[in-house]
Amino acid sequence: MLKNDQLDQWDRENFFHPSTHLAQHARGESPSRVIKTASGVHIEDRDGNKLLDAFAGLYCVNAGYGRREITDAIAAQAQELAYYHSYVGHGTEASITLSKMILDRAPANMSKVYFGLGGSDANETNIKLVWYYNNILGRPEKKKIISRWRGYHGSGIVTGSLTGLELFHKKFDLPIEQVKHTMAPDFFRRDDLSQTEEQFTAACVADLEELIAREGADTIAGFIGEPVLGTGGIVPPPKGYWPAIQAVLKKHDILLIVDEVVTGFGRLGTMFGSDKYGLEADIITIAKGLTSAYAPLSGSIIGERMWKVLEQGTDENGPIGHGWTYSAHPIGAAAGVANLKLIDDLDLVANAGSVGAYLNSSMKEALADHPHVGDVRGEGLLCAVEFVKDKDSRTFFDPADKIGAQVSATMLAQDKVIARAMPQADMLGFAPPFCLSRDEVDTIVAATARAVKTVLGS
Amino acid sequence: MLKNDQLDQWDRENFFHPSTHLAQHARGESPSRVIKTASGVHIEDRDGNKLLDAFAGLYCVNAGYGRREITDAIAAQAQELAYYHSYVGHGTEASITLSKMILDRAPANMSKVYFGLGGSDANETNIKLVWYYNNILGRPEKKKIISRWRGYHGSGIVTGSLTGLELFHKKFDLPIEQVKHTMAPDFFRRDDLSQTEEQFTAACVADLEELIAREGADTIAGFIGEPVLGTGGIVPPPKGYWPAIQAVLKKHDILLIVDEVVTGFGRLGTMFGSDKYGLEADIITIAKGLTSAYAPLSGSIIGERMWKVLEQGTDENGPIGHGWTYSAHPIGAAAGVANLKLIDDLDLVANAGSVGAYLNSSMKEALADHPHVGDVRGEGLLCAVEFVKDKDSRTFFDPADKIGAQVSATMLAQDKVIARAMPQADMLGFAPPFCLSRDEVDTIVAATARAVKTVLGS
Ligand SMILES: Cc1ncc(COP(=O)(O)O)c(C=O)c1O
Ligand SMILES: Cc1ncc(COP(=O)(O)O)c(C=O)c1O
Repeated sequence: MLKNDQLDQWDRENFFHPSTHLAQHARGESPSRVIKTASGVHIEDRDGNKLLDAFAGLYCVNAGYGRREITDAIAAQAQELAYYHSYVGHGTEASITLSKMILDRAPANMSKVYFGLGGSDANETNIKLVWYYNNILGRPEKKKIISRWRGYHGSGIVTGSLTGLELFHKKFDLPIEQVKHTMAPDFFRRDDLSQTEEQFTAACVADLEELIAREGADTIAGFIGEPVLGTGGIVPPPKGYWPAIQAVLKKHDILLIVDEVVTGFGRLGTMFGSDKYGLEADIITIAKGLTSAYAPLSGSIIGERMWKVLEQGTDENGPIGHGWTYSAHPIGAAAGVANLKLIDDLDLVANAGSVGAYLNSSMKEALADHPHVGDVRGEGLLCAVEFVKDKDSRTFFDPADKIGAQVSATMLAQDKVIARAMPQADMLGFAPPFCLSRDEVDTIVAATARAVKTVLGS
Repeated sequence: MLKNDQLDQWDRENFFHPSTHLAQHARGESPSRVIKTASGVHIEDRDGNKLLDAFAGLYCVNAGYGRREITDAIAAQAQELAYYHSYVGHGTEASITLSKMILDRAPANMSKVYFGLGGSDANETNIKLVWYYNNILGRPEKKKIISRWRGYHGSGIVTGSLTGLELFHKKFDLPIEQVKHTMAPDFFRRDDLSQTEEQFTAACVADLEELIAREGADTIAGFIGEPVLGTGGIVPPPKGYWPAIQAVLKKHDILLIVDEVVTGFGRLGTMFGSDKYGLEADIITIAKGLTSAYAPLSGSIIGERMWKVLEQGTDENGPIGHGWTYSAHPIGAAAGVANLKLIDDLDLVANAGSVGAYLNSSMKEALADHPHVGDVRGEGLLCAVEFVKDKDSRTFFDPADKIGAQVSATMLAQDKVIARAMPQADMLGFAPPFCLSRDEVDTIVAATARAVKTVLGS
């Protein structure tokens, strides 16, 4: 076995890590952590530290770590057929079966699934298809996409533009022209503190209407949103938000892309976030929970009305000029089949709902009254704690103080619990595997309370 | 086991295949083929047909099918740790080791590797980094990317723009503004038949110079090219092409992205195409051959001069806002380590060189004199046969006759050999696994000659 210090050196000399301070890492100023194995809700590094992962990797290991049902399926598929492409009508038993399993679970009126690798490329596919759709319908001007500030939809040039977080735009010349942002549906952070939740929802709708009026509805092709804002801070929608937004989109003939990369396959206690909020999507983006991250696989579930136009498009223009070499990769497909089956067999969606409710209520009980906790919120197995400098005036800490990052680091150091310091502000995020037990909830909540006390006092 | 007709129905009802005529497939008018297993250079479908895959999937299964060394590594990694992310300095033994193995094999002056999933997202990363680079250097206007007509660099919005094939642009509003194309370095298809190869190379260089002059060098950030054109028709560069092009790029301070997704890790008989043609890349794109497609994994190898600026960028701006959830996925990393080791152990790069030379010379011998074969060309284990209506006047067939596709279908039907009808014109492509034997070369060449005779006469 390689020595840890050898790996550490190779890492710093050769490995360009995502979302990392490259210079500090190369100079050895920031920690590197080599993960060795994992089981249930725990991961273990090469130094023997066992950590409770309350963020399930990047909210993706939904079924929990070390599931033999999934790893055996991967091993069997690798041996039988590790790869063949899915171009021009090729497939494997696993990829075809998975496409059927996804449609069986999807909301009504969905028609087909295109397979990609990650959430970003799936959203890239979506934008391409939305443009194609309007070209086939003879509306070449209807192309802009509306996204929300604080939405997260990927890290490519177009998908990073959809993402409404400054960190992903700065120095990359994003967002591109065709992407416009409307306001974040975050009631806690509303500008006007006197607004009620209903008034705030109305303000969100008005902002969207104004944006559409300003740009012209005939220039706007699609709207993309997560059922619950994820990386932008884990924010469930304010009351009445989705029905009102959907009414606006319908009125202006704007396609709805529901990005369920985080919420798909159970995280909110329902199979899809669309089920929970009554969303009628034209496209649903899926990734993470599709395979519980055991292998890279994403998808775009295409609704009936779009699919009909795509068929018309190929009748008029021949084969569709879109494909990734690894679309519907057999290993990903096999992992997906085993994962969705396991989620059913263990009733993990229901568990996400009930344990999620317990996590959210416990966290509220433990922290809502803390003078520096402004908000505790969540839905299903998503939960966030947001810090404030002063509660009554809802003033925030100086970002340079990095309060969120400090609390997260303290939880790790004191209690070996991983929570994620969300990138945009002083928010701590929780998104554990679905197999989380109530005892483990208690551990997470206690660790959080203790770290908050350490960093911010009682 | 599922019945074939059941799978066929599920496929047509649920599965959106890439690069497929969607309407015909859904209506059952085009064949679907369910691949079951594979070994060496052969794949087998569920009806028991065994096919010699002379295109290695999509020129990616370089080590050959059914390699236990790779599938065992995948199985072991899946069991030990199927997933953890690589953000903020996290890694696994496999991903760190692989980053070192890649740099050990890469040309001089390369510094770090960023891991992605497929070739498209790797090129997307590259463009983002090139833009970031020039922003850090204070040259915000230097952003356009030059690609070549007939280049292939992916299927996203930006990467499909880099791709210089109409099929990938039509109805998708591509290419985007920031991407400009220069002429394809295809001597056989030169406009002026009186040109010598040297004159043609000079014309390619002049076209690039003119494009740069027209746009302004201070608006052009990068140039991307495959060492040998791949999907655009498998075309080795004309004599003197790369040294002359590189001189122009240096003169105008334009970064060079060498897309080695097809050529990387041995296909030309050298570890990289850059080694063969003396290319001094700022970024090298890798994918397919990195894992022999056993698991999705791609990479961007960043050169020293860019890396320094990226470090400066994070010192000035904090962590880099770029990352995919599945960057450096453990299963892909384990497959990569095992694959590169196997390629060394079996000396497959040398085999690609020698058997590739035999394939190319045999194909020439068998077909170059045929009245409807205009060109037989290749390099290493890449080979193409291009059809013409008339040889002396070099006139081409009507694309509607689909001669290339007919020959490919005939080879499959008559001799169960897969060659790829390249998308842009009547060209047949060969890119077999590196473990190909001379006997298998003879089979491929005989099948090709027989199919050409069937379709086009002797
Ligand atoms: C809602 C959502 N969409 C898309 C993505 C992008 O997925 P990936 O990182 O796999 O490209 C993410 C990743 O966190 C996400 O949370
Ligand atoms: C040279 C080259 N670059 C990039 C790509 C895109 O790779 P992927 O299909 O994995 O996105 C390909 C795919 O064929 C390629 O041949």
